[in-house]
Amino acid sequence: MMKLKKALPLVAGLVLWQHAAAQPPATAVTAAMGNVRMEFTLGRQGNPQYAVWLGSQPVILPSALGLQLQQQQLQKGFVIQGIDSTATDNTWQPVWGETRTIRDQHRQLTIHLQQPATGILLDVVFRVFADGVGFRYAFPRQKGLQHFVVTDEVTAFRLAGDHKAFWIPGDYDTNEYAYTTSKVSAIDNSKMVHASTDIAVRVVPDKHAVQTPLMMKSAKGIYLNIHEAALINYPAMQLHVSTDSLLLRAALVPDALGHKAYLQAPCHTPWRTVVVSDKATDILASKMILNLNEPSRAGDNTTWIKPMKFAGVWWEMQTGQSTWSYAATADSTDATGALIASGKHGANTANVKRYIDFAAANGIAGVLVEGWNVGWEDWFGTWKEEVFDFVKPYPDFDVQQLQQYAAAKGVQLIMHNETSGAATSYERQMDTAFRFMNRFGYPAVKTGYVGRIVPRGEHHDGQWMVNHYQRVAQKALQHQVTVDMHEAVRPTGLHRTYPNWMASEAGRGNEYNAFSNGNAPEHETILPFTRLMGGPMDYTPGIFKLKGYAAAAPDRQVHTTLAKQLALYVTLYSPLQMVSDLPENYAAHTDAFEFIKEVPVDWDDTRIVEAEPGDYITIARKAKGNDNWFAGAITDENARTAIIPLSFLDSNKQYEVTIYEDAANAHWKNNPEAYHIRKEKVTAQTQLRIQLAAGGGAAVSIRPL
Amino acid sequence: MMKLKKALPLVAGLVLWQHAAAQPPATAVTAAMGNVRMEFTLGRQGNPQYAVWLGSQPVILPSALGLQLQQQQLQKGFVIQGIDSTATDNTWQPVWGETRTIRDQHRQLTIHLQQPATGILLDVVFRVFADGVGFRYAFPRQKGLQHFVVTDEVTAFRLAGDHKAFWIPGDYDTNEYAYTTSKVSAIDNSKMVHASTDIAVRVVPDKHAVQTPLMMKSAKGIYLNIHEAALINYPAMQLHVSTDSLLLRAALVPDALGHKAYLQAPCHTPWRTVVVSDKATDILASKMILNLNEPSRAGDNTTWIKPMKFAGVWWEMQTGQSTWSYAATADSTDATGALIASGKHGANTANVKRYIDFAAANGIAGVLVEGWNVGWEDWFGTWKEEVFDFVKPYPDFDVQQLQQYAAAKGVQLIMHNETSGAATSYERQMDTAFRFMNRFGYPAVKTGYVGRIVPRGEHHDGQWMVNHYQRVAQKALQHQVTVDMHEAVRPTGLHRTYPNWMASEAGRGNEYNAFSNGNAPEHETILPFTRLMGGPMDYTPGIFKLKGYAAAAPDRQVHTTLAKQLALYVTLYSPLQMVSDLPENYAAHTDAFEFIKEVPVDWDDTRIVEAEPGDYITIARKAKGNDNWFAGAITDENARTAIIPLSFLDSNKQYEVTIYEDAANAHWKNNPEAYHIRKEKVTAQTQLRIQLAAGGGAAVSIRPL
Repeated sequence: MMKLKKALPLVAGLVLWQHAAAQPPATAVTAAMGNVRMEFTLGRQGNPQYAVWLGSQPVILPSALGLQLQQQQLQKGFVIQGIDSTATDNTWQPVWGETRTIRDQHRQLTIHLQQPATGILLDVVFRVFADGVGFRYAFPRQKGLQHFVVTDEVTAFRLAGDHKAFWIPGDYDTNEYAYTTSKVSAIDNSKMVHASTDIAVRVVPDKHAVQTPLMMKSAKGIYLNIHEAALINYPAMQLHVSTDSLLLRAALVPDALGHKAYLQAPCHTPWRTVVVSDKATDILASKMILNLNEPSRAGDNTTWIKPMKFAGVWWEMQTGQSTWSYAATADSTDATGALIASGKHGANTANVKRYIDFAAANGIAGVLVEGWNVGWEDWFGTWKEEVFDFVKPYPDFDVQQLQQYAAAKGVQLIMHNETSGAATSYERQMDTAFRFMNRFGYPAVKTGYVGRIVPRGEHHDGQWMVNHYQRVAQKALQHQVTVDMHEAVRPTGLHRTYPNWMASEAGRGNEYNAFSNGNAPEHETILPFTRLMGGPMDYTPGIFKLKGYAAAAPDRQVHTTLAKQLALYVTLYSPLQMVSDLPENYAAHTDAFEFIKEVPVDWDDTRIVEAEPGDYITIARKAKGNDNWFAGAITDENARTAIIPLSFLDSNKQYEVTIYEDAANAHWKNNPEAYHIRKEKVTAQTQLRIQLAAGGGAAVSIRPL
Repeated sequence: MMKLKKALPLVAGLVLWQHAAAQPPATAVTAAMGNVRMEFTLGRQGNPQYAVWLGSQPVILPSALGLQLQQQQLQKGFVIQGIDSTATDNTWQPVWGETRTIRDQHRQLTIHLQQPATGILLDVVFRVFADGVGFRYAFPRQKGLQHFVVTDEVTAFRLAGDHKAFWIPGDYDTNEYAYTTSKVSAIDNSKMVHASTDIAVRVVPDKHAVQTPLMMKSAKGIYLNIHEAALINYPAMQLHVSTDSLLLRAALVPDALGHKAYLQAPCHTPWRTVVVSDKATDILASKMILNLNEPSRAGDNTTWIKPMKFAGVWWEMQTGQSTWSYAATADSTDATGALIASGKHGANTANVKRYIDFAAANGIAGVLVEGWNVGWEDWFGTWKEEVFDFVKPYPDFDVQQLQQYAAAKGVQLIMHNETSGAATSYERQMDTAFRFMNRFGYPAVKTGYVGRIVPRGEHHDGQWMVNHYQRVAQKALQHQVTVDMHEAVRPTGLHRTYPNWMASEAGRGNEYNAFSNGNAPEHETILPFTRLMGGPMDYTPGIFKLKGYAAAAPDRQVHTTLAKQLALYVTLYSPLQMVSDLPENYAAHTDAFEFIKEVPVDWDDTRIVEAEPGDYITIARKAKGNDNWFAGAITDENARTAIIPLSFLDSNKQYEVTIYEDAANAHWKNNPEAYHIRKEKVTAQTQLRIQLAAGGGAAVSIRPL
């Protein structure tokens, strides 16, 4: 890494000028990378501002920077004390991911500000990439400011037009809303919040607030994504939308007292990110958020961090065929006080063995078991603090027998720790819980936070919980356990730093098709542009029985075709992918199930072939360590033809493709399970054309001959 | 125990009558024990009320009972569904205490109420003792009410006159105020709160709120104490004083959201207690609060629970002669980032050995060491969550060497876990911290909560922290460690249930003489009537150098004589008593120090000889397991003659008394260290008369010849 202090003229793309004037001079500093350019200006009131361009197109008009502290206003009255500039170009290897290597090429500008009236030092640090800009605030070590409380962040994103936006409400506790597509000027979340009664906890005090990642498209075809990177020791950033002025302003999730963050200098905030391109595919290909995160803390031995597919005692509960709880109610006890079995408990030893058998027979590495530990009779919706015992199984779940059975079959059991939002209770038991996992051979844990948070008054996305999730990831790292967090804050690329924090939910997963009106056909074409910008999602694809699965609602259905369920294993990247449906439903379609059996969860390379948020996505990926390629193509409610030029293949080789596609008469609504499998010989010159049904998709495996 | 259901006429002292009327009948139920009588009435609006008499004197005039829940008002509209009555007379043995056995004789009345409009069931349970009344609310298991939030408790105590009261402000976070003596009608805490800048955290939203135990004396000489017993899973009860109507109303400490308690039926609230007598000595002798607590959970093996005296690396820091921290500031680091020693660190191996030597030489069982673990450079006043590592010593504190040294000398080291109020951080580390204690031979721990609480918005005395303290006591019980909690909620007799929770601070200790204007001469004559009603206090008596000890304030002094410091070991009961002063200050008065060496911390019997709150206390106690007696007599700022009839002695024996008394010219202000020691032969017929100086006291040991 090249580091140049105060040697500005040497840095390409960096210009500093000052306007001589009677008033304090307005100062502008600019930096560029490829087609992306940012400019920092200190306004005439000493107010820091920045702007972003893509070529000649303004992306972010001059917008305010700053923070409000409990004791200080850090929005104006600043002078520039110095500017540092560095340029970086290096390549690193993720422990797992969509590509084998990742290039990190950026310019960094650090603007050292001082507020003479208070003596406070504040740095603004920019990194400019070819696909966007990241910036954050840093507080150097200083005498006059050590411990402080952030009451507001005034960072703004002034849009250059009334873009089309793909948004969910800015909720302090959940990301599980369906997406709305509207003009920025039309954003109003109140109806959506009111209607989303299928979400356990909804707290949205601002009807003009949206969650990040926020995906937008300008009338001129510029794609623009606003999010954050490396969210550590700070609340999540949502965006308050001024619908008339098209100004987005950072809205931090508060704590119980309305405070935003408790910090101690030296420190810095998370990066605010603007990913931008005139190609939608570039947005999905961007590694900027990962590059803004710190390198892995997992050390050199990462062989225990294993991407995997997993089956689970899960969909049967989601669909009402069995229960998480052992007894019907907490009051169902016998004379000795012992729970009386309802006979509907899913996580019983025999049933778990059935899933282990299924996984072993099909090369699926893991089996998740939910509802194995005591507490489920009275766990939900009561803001109770002591709910679960994380090491005490129900009487019909034989921990040791299942450990031996799974080990003998070469299957790994995945621990489930639902907290019901009582993070304090979980933290008290975490040492014990992780020792239990180590002792009984659980290499992975799925955590859950369904319900209002304890400490009461805290929110899922506030600073305290953000720190909690990190503590869980760190504790898991110490114990060599991988983590999949549900109902946690949406990711911000921290899986680079904690590669054992492999996936999160933090979005509206496939499960909503089980217990609600479900997800619209366009849903999965939006997720990669929004929720997945920050990191992998445990979406739980792979539902084969697309109708008639919900005991309580016979006409409920998944809003995709079966072929699209296959495609999701490629289009929705995660190193943990659930094989979500019941074994018997896979047995009914063994030919289609072949794709799930063979699709990898870790990749050497990825090509975003076609993409348009809300409409379609086609992605091809090369398996880690061999020459097999896989592709997935999905569409929204409109049928279309996916076109996949195979130019990424080795031009010297012949390949055989197996295409799992919608049948000609398939349709997500009336005929979702109609698919067709065909094989072809292809080369790098081949261009695959595949018909996708309305709400349909296609999955492709490509193997060298 | 006799239990009579609905067999009211058989129970002595219990009468039930109903007034026939057009309106719903007012129902009254009464029960009595000795001179104390209570009456429950259901008013014409179905509003539950109670009243208390001592003989013919009203103690509590008819006063409201009830609760306000988030969804329900439980104050009126009730009908009586039934009444249960039991009588109890049994005797139990505390693991340690002021007497070898405790008699629990009471009548219990349970009024089963139902609110027809809501179907809610609510029981009010009374226990009447010869020295007072306790009552609590109980929610039976019921369909219509399971999880609920208490937003207010409307329990009232309507006084029969404008009594003299001994009070401190009702602060959510501290009990460390000096006492004010005033009429109830004159209670206004605002000046005291404003002036008490020596207290770290003060939160008193109600200027008419006082803390319990609240001690009062009526114009007719009735002594009356209001407090609570068995505070579990509920916030502390303070009292809002209506100064015009002389009505005290329960004021529960809120959580961050203003809620008071989160409960789940079946459950009950803590007992509200009224201890009453026409003799002040009866108040101090009362075991009612202990009797209202549940029996010990420590099991049969309690030999590890050892009352003890302990020295400590402590007063030298309080007085500014050394520091808790190792480095001068957190920024005092060398090039490697290691802290640079300031040279003033108290908890260094050599100094700790000096205290171990002192303890071993004088038969003092324990040595407390504060400031041994990292974190003290930046621990105070910043609401920081991660402050201390509870198992990481400073580089100059050799854990293993000191373990061996102490063991070789037969001295037990006492662990110190200061949390700075960050209870969440402590809970995360507690497993590790207690394993550390077990491993390195620490049989006891002193915990501390100096600072605002994390979870932020919670208070020291709210439900969450009340539960936290209990979790600490339980965890300690599992690890066979005894606990002394500082800055925790004031005790409510839970040391019966958790005999390893041996003492608490929760009051204004001797330490205030080190760093503030200190404690008035009357202070220790009020404490037993207030703070100590709930349980032992780690007051840290035994200061011998009474002037010129504070480095920063040369004219600071303790407001007692030296002889009074000795007397406090008897008058302020605790099974943990600190031998607080520096070894060199004891070396200057080896004759007086003999009393501290021989005074026990566990007793077979206790006689409250004389007592008047705010004026004087004289107590005699018989040592556990032998025939030695000890007495302590203290006075306020007025000199007086303590008179101790030795009628409690064995009438067949001769004894020798050693009297440690104020010298004739002693005075707390000008001549506090002047004392005189004399020996006499006595019998049960002897009446000791001892002159106490202004602010003085006397200590007496009585040994059979």
